Amino acid sequence: MRALTFDVFGTVVDWRGSLIREGRALGRRLGLEVDWAAFADAWRAGYRPAMDRVRRGDLPWMNIDALHRVILDQILREFGIRQLKEADKQHLNHAWHRLRPWPDAAKGLARLKRNFVIATLSNGNMSLLTEMAKHAGLPWDCILSAELFRHYKPDPESYRGAAELLGCKRQEVMMVAAHEDDLIHARRAGLRTAFVWRPAEFGRGAHRPKPAADAFDIVVDDFVELARRLGC
Amino acid sequence: MRALTFDVFGTVVDWRGSLIREGRALGRRLGLEVDWAAFADAWRAGYRPAMDRVRRGDLPWMNIDALHRVILDQILREFGIRQLKEADKQHLNHAWHRLRPWPDAAKGLARLKRNFVIATLSNGNMSLLTEMAKHAGLPWDCILSAELFRHYKPDPESYRGAAELLGCKRQEVMMVAAHEDDLIHARRAGLRTAFVWRPAEFGRGAHRPKPAADAFDIVVDDFVELARRLGC
Repeated sequence: MRALTFDVFGTVVDWRGSLIREGRALGRRLGLEVDWAAFADAWRAGYRPAMDRVRRGDLPWMNIDALHRVILDQILREFGIRQLKEADKQHLNHAWHRLRPWPDAAKGLARLKRNFVIATLSNGNMSLLTEMAKHAGLPWDCILSAELFRHYKPDPESYRGAAELLGCKRQEVMMVAAHEDDLIHARRAGLRTAFVWRPAEFGRGAHRPKPAADAFDIVVDDFVELARRLGC
Repeated sequence: MRALTFDVFGTVVDWRGSLIREGRALGRRLGLEVDWAAFADAWRAGYRPAMDRVRRGDLPWMNIDALHRVILDQILREFGIRQLKEADKQHLNHAWHRLRPWPDAAKGLARLKRNFVIATLSNGNMSLLTEMAKHAGLPWDCILSAELFRHYKPDPESYRGAAELLGCKRQEVMMVAAHEDDLIHARRAGLRTAFVWRPAEFGRGAHRPKPAADAFDIVVDDFVELARRLGC
């Protein structure tokens, strides 16, 4: 094994907690009364259907910044938020560039980086991932995105393309994610798989069962445990 | 201005000195008598014509690792070197992944990174640039390569594609290179330009005049001066 590729939203960063915090800050500034947890959930819920429309070819290629903006405009209407200027909307849409990592992420990545090439493999666009890494201090060796292949995960082109750009055979790459669907498709594409359990991704109330230890090559609770399991 | 994109071979790393050192080490190990400076120059001299054949469509897309290998096999014959096993050839071909930076490079990049997104924009392939960064401690925010666009510099698609992936307008990106040709084409594509004078790139004897101060947006002697000029 030579390289690890990481899903990002939910696996590396706490998108929900970060969006709630950004929403609350905006709400205080503009005097808005909004359930920001519900707002964050609605924004995320719009993402998969929108992306699937691109995957099926119903929409032309759009990167995640553009998809997030389409969904944002819709949920702003749904939540009755009419006070935002264009600059506020752009700032809020870029909250996804400022998502905060889970507490173990940077530390675990620094250890994994000693022995392996560590790269993102996210549906987030390149500039989103680059700015997030800079903002959050994530020590990637390389930023890779579905945007490079114009195929969103879980299309096989994204997993295969990542291995190829890393100059690796597919079995030399391990996909790391908190989502079983992502890993099942990575495995089908020939990659190894590590599941990281992030039970708080959708909030403390949402039940997220941990898969069996043999469901993937590795099943762990955080990135530091992953580093230990991989001998780093 | 939001981002800086860097040419790599000759601008960030001393390919000639590094290849000579790698060649000498190989020569000592295998008992070869070779003029490694001439060998390095021949290898580099083969690169532009081979790349231009790809650019014109005479050859199918090949990344730089593959092009370097084609040229290597040819110059090994020309220099009468027949003792290399396949593993030796692969190791020598990957000397380009282990090129060493000019003394000011890592320090200057660390300063520039405080205020700007810093990315490679090289004809070197993604895995070459990723491994080089890891090996040499180059703190890129993002690795970009002509490989992503399947258009080698100085094709305009490479400069435009880099600005787009960085989420920047073209005039928000500054191309940094030690080669006037690269910068002239970057400027035509709409980017800003910074020339870094690397007079020793082709050896101490080769005369490399420094362009006039107004030939590009910025003309400097090294990356630390570039950082100072850009207020970092």
